[in-house]
Amino acid sequence: MKIEHILPADIERRSMEIIEAELGPIQLPPDEKDIIKRVVHTSADFDYVRNLRFSEGAVGKALEALQKGCTIVTDTNMACMGISQPGLTKLGCHKVCFMADDDVAAAAREKGTTRAQASMDKAAGLTGPLIIAVGNAPTALLRLKELIEAGQIAPALIIGVPVGFVNVEYAKEVIMEAGVPYIVAKGRKGGSTIAAAICNALIYKLTR
Amino acid sequence: MKIEHILPADIERRSMEIIEAELGPIQLPPDEKDIIKRVVHTSADFDYVRNLRFSEGAVGKALEALQKGCTIVTDTNMACMGISQPGLTKLGCHKVCFMADDDVAAAAREKGTTRAQASMDKAAGLTGPLIIAVGNAPTALLRLKELIEAGQIAPALIIGVPVGFVNVEYAKEVIMEAGVPYIVAKGRKGGSTIAAAICNALIYKLTR
Repeated sequence: MKIEHILPADIERRSMEIIEAELGPIQLPPDEKDIIKRVVHTSADFDYVRNLRFSEGAVGKALEALQKGCTIVTDTNMACMGISQPGLTKLGCHKVCFMADDDVAAAAREKGTTRAQASMDKAAGLTGPLIIAVGNAPTALLRLKELIEAGQIAPALIIGVPVGFVNVEYAKEVIMEAGVPYIVAKGRKGGSTIAAAICNALIYKLTR
Repeated sequence: MKIEHILPADIERRSMEIIEAELGPIQLPPDEKDIIKRVVHTSADFDYVRNLRFSEGAVGKALEALQKGCTIVTDTNMACMGISQPGLTKLGCHKVCFMADDDVAAAAREKGTTRAQASMDKAAGLTGPLIIAVGNAPTALLRLKELIEAGQIAPALIIGVPVGFVNVEYAKEVIMEAGVPYIVAKGRKGGSTIAAAICNALIYKLTR
């Protein structure tokens, strides 16, 4: 195995060329393609080419929200950390994660829920357009479905990519029936890096 | 698909049971098994069962460093964020990421390197035992090899799990020949969540 001599600034472009070449003749919807490629770039896992599911017009709705200065709410501080701050600043958007907040911990204790559920309740109190990015907790998705049905939250997009073995696939199926725009990684795979990558792919569509 | 009714506190145990069952008759070295299982738990990707490579005695060396109050240096703030602070506190250990530091940015500009390389140079100035966890930048691993050869750094463990398509596999091969204990995800896969998961699996061996 040999080193490829390349400037750091060119590595992403070269990586995307390799991904493009390995995708071969697969036809991906144009507005979804950048997002799928960025998730593959983040994971080196081509499973996402068939796992990622987009509701009709989801990308357009998300871009509209980003152009209106939306807030992105994540269910882990890792995912929040991974979302491009320079990109958000250009768009006048914000990112938040409530998981480590004292009031969320207290509400979860009081109501006997997970902190992920309590942090979705807190997100329902935000004003302005919302993108909710869930990379960890299936309970966050299940709570979102309840909040949507109760008319308490109406996200412009739900990114449903929790990873895991217990209730993860179920929660993803539920959120795909919630009647709001979604990008979901079907099956067990996902995670904080995947959630952040999808957010960044959307942000870069407007800022690069 | 149905929901599995389970207390949040029991989800990790149940997930590990599922992973154990799906591993089937594969025999994994006992000291490596917890680490491999936690990486699968974090990624839902069983490829890591065959991708993860441990140098002889690597786990023991890492646990020794953790018992001596080591510093864990990461190459992304995401990975740093993902490492269990309660676990580190119990052990008297620390975690740092230098990637966003002004002096690292300045050194990288001055020397024409990546910030990842400059952050490894900064890590070489730390005292006490070190675990270096690289989940993103192959250039960090290549710089570590140079620092090791120059006698400027001697990590107790290198976690070499950058993800990507350009020079990632090469850098992993190089670090496996550097003469220091390693845990490496061979091939293209890895990432910040994988780096953090390996750190946490080691920490939990001593704190749970």
